Amino acid sequence: MISKLIKKIEEKDAPIVVGLDPQMSFLPKFLLDEAIKEKGETLEAACDAVVKYNKGIIDATFDLIPAVKPQIAMYEQFGCAGVAAYKETCDYAKSKGLVVIGDIKRGDIGSTSGAYATGHIGTIEIGSKTYAPFDEDMVTVNPYLGSDGVQPFIDVCNKCDRGIFVLVKTSNPSSGEFQDREIDGRPLYELVGEKVREWGEASMDGDYSNVGAVVGATYPEMGKILRQIMPKSYILVPGYGAQGGKAEDLKCFFNSDGLGAIVNSSRGIIAAYKNEKYAKFGEAGYAEASREAVKDMIADINSAR
Amino acid sequence: MISKLIKKIEEKDAPIVVGLDPQMSFLPKFLLDEAIKEKGETLEAACDAVVKYNKGIIDATFDLIPAVKPQIAMYEQFGCAGVAAYKETCDYAKSKGLVVIGDIKRGDIGSTSGAYATGHIGTIEIGSKTYAPFDEDMVTVNPYLGSDGVQPFIDVCNKCDRGIFVLVKTSNPSSGEFQDREIDGRPLYELVGEKVREWGEASMDGDYSNVGAVVGATYPEMGKILRQIMPKSYILVPGYGAQGGKAEDLKCFFNSDGLGAIVNSSRGIIAAYKNEKYAKFGEAGYAEASREAVKDMIADINSAR
Repeated sequence: MISKLIKKIEEKDAPIVVGLDPQMSFLPKFLLDEAIKEKGETLEAACDAVVKYNKGIIDATFDLIPAVKPQIAMYEQFGCAGVAAYKETCDYAKSKGLVVIGDIKRGDIGSTSGAYATGHIGTIEIGSKTYAPFDEDMVTVNPYLGSDGVQPFIDVCNKCDRGIFVLVKTSNPSSGEFQDREIDGRPLYELVGEKVREWGEASMDGDYSNVGAVVGATYPEMGKILRQIMPKSYILVPGYGAQGGKAEDLKCFFNSDGLGAIVNSSRGIIAAYKNEKYAKFGEAGYAEASREAVKDMIADINSAR
Repeated sequence: MISKLIKKIEEKDAPIVVGLDPQMSFLPKFLLDEAIKEKGETLEAACDAVVKYNKGIIDATFDLIPAVKPQIAMYEQFGCAGVAAYKETCDYAKSKGLVVIGDIKRGDIGSTSGAYATGHIGTIEIGSKTYAPFDEDMVTVNPYLGSDGVQPFIDVCNKCDRGIFVLVKTSNPSSGEFQDREIDGRPLYELVGEKVREWGEASMDGDYSNVGAVVGATYPEMGKILRQIMPKSYILVPGYGAQGGKAEDLKCFFNSDGLGAIVNSSRGIIAAYKNEKYAKFGEAGYAEASREAVKDMIADINSAR
């Protein structure tokens, strides 16, 4: 799978991913009003608005980008209807040729991680039929439970040609509380990075592994070291833009081949219309605003790598 | 919320929780056959069988137990239909007066954890209406991202009278890979335990906190220390039975008041009919087998505390 993602990144010359994280406050009012008119003040109406919003952004940007990263939490907040909206968003993005990275941060003990892997990137048999339930291309995974929580995902990556990104050093302010604590003189995230390298050896796909890592743009010094620890792992880099990460901070996440990193922006793209810089598009032009923001982001990131 | 759970534990004299983790291999064949006859070899058929299976177990045990713990991964493996089956299971259990502990192990950066908390234990407003999307009573939370990933859950606990159990030391074989690593001479899980105590002070409900912890029955020596580190936190103890934890190992998880721990069993109860000890019930008597297994488990656990 990682070779497929790399091919798309090279085709579009855009090592970026658009985070489809539809917070209620991002939704253009007219979309929610329309949906409520049809379905009342219901969870289903909110989800209809979310799907329409996402489709607008996908339509306006799919020719420029290799991938989208829907954050499942922003859909789970609406319950079952939200999970259906997540699935519809993933399917629509795939129909437009995009790689779908499900930001699900799952992780559990062996058999349970196996069920998550089956549901999200694998297949399940019911009688003589086989189904791919959520059918994302790649997902994010939480490593706190250790190898037996991650291995079932790797097994499914190998069986179904999929990929994962394991949380190593997250972008949030308190990520250091546990991740930075020193063990034998080295921070925990480095030990997790070493495990990612080891896990990744079991799922190589060309020059890179299907087992990547999440390292926040907000911690470039740590990114530099992690880049060296995991040379064959793609790094999914959140935290650019709204969270404070700058293009100049991103250089260290790339390898000398210009590959090895894919930078995410969520609100910077999908809520661009709320940004003064793109205000001329107005709420009705939210999708066009996203397109402009994508173009600007690609130029910014490519200036750094 | 924890005071509500404690009241139910005392009423039933049963500090146990039944894990509703319907793996495909546990499903009685006749239930799946019936569902396939009606809906074909589909994900929906499998989910119908799962819900019927769960309802049978709940009907046969609800008078004996305080709570159930559905493991959402076992539902997500069926995609959207599975998530709807999860919700139906939670709702049915609540209608029978049971506390529902959603084993979701979510955790993310601040606003995203906020969305998970909203969806699972909180409420969301659509126009003038307020909804509780999944409406579990308590959920499990992954601490790898630190305080800003956990705080949104605590805020919702306080707003909506709910509870959480934070992963501290998990029951699986490789949990030690990161959790046992020593930081300033002490294992990571102890530091997480100290954070749980600190977080818990912000959500007290009687003698105990709404912020509990997950500590595996498979690690009793560590449980003993963690019991002392987090005296006001309820410990949710997985790993009893099928995973190898024994009643004699459980004493250390309880406080001297006989409270402070709730022990989970999943396959030991829900797949009891596959166990030689309860084979006389047969597949058709799977629910009755579960009832007998619950009675035996309660006697076993109460002999230890």
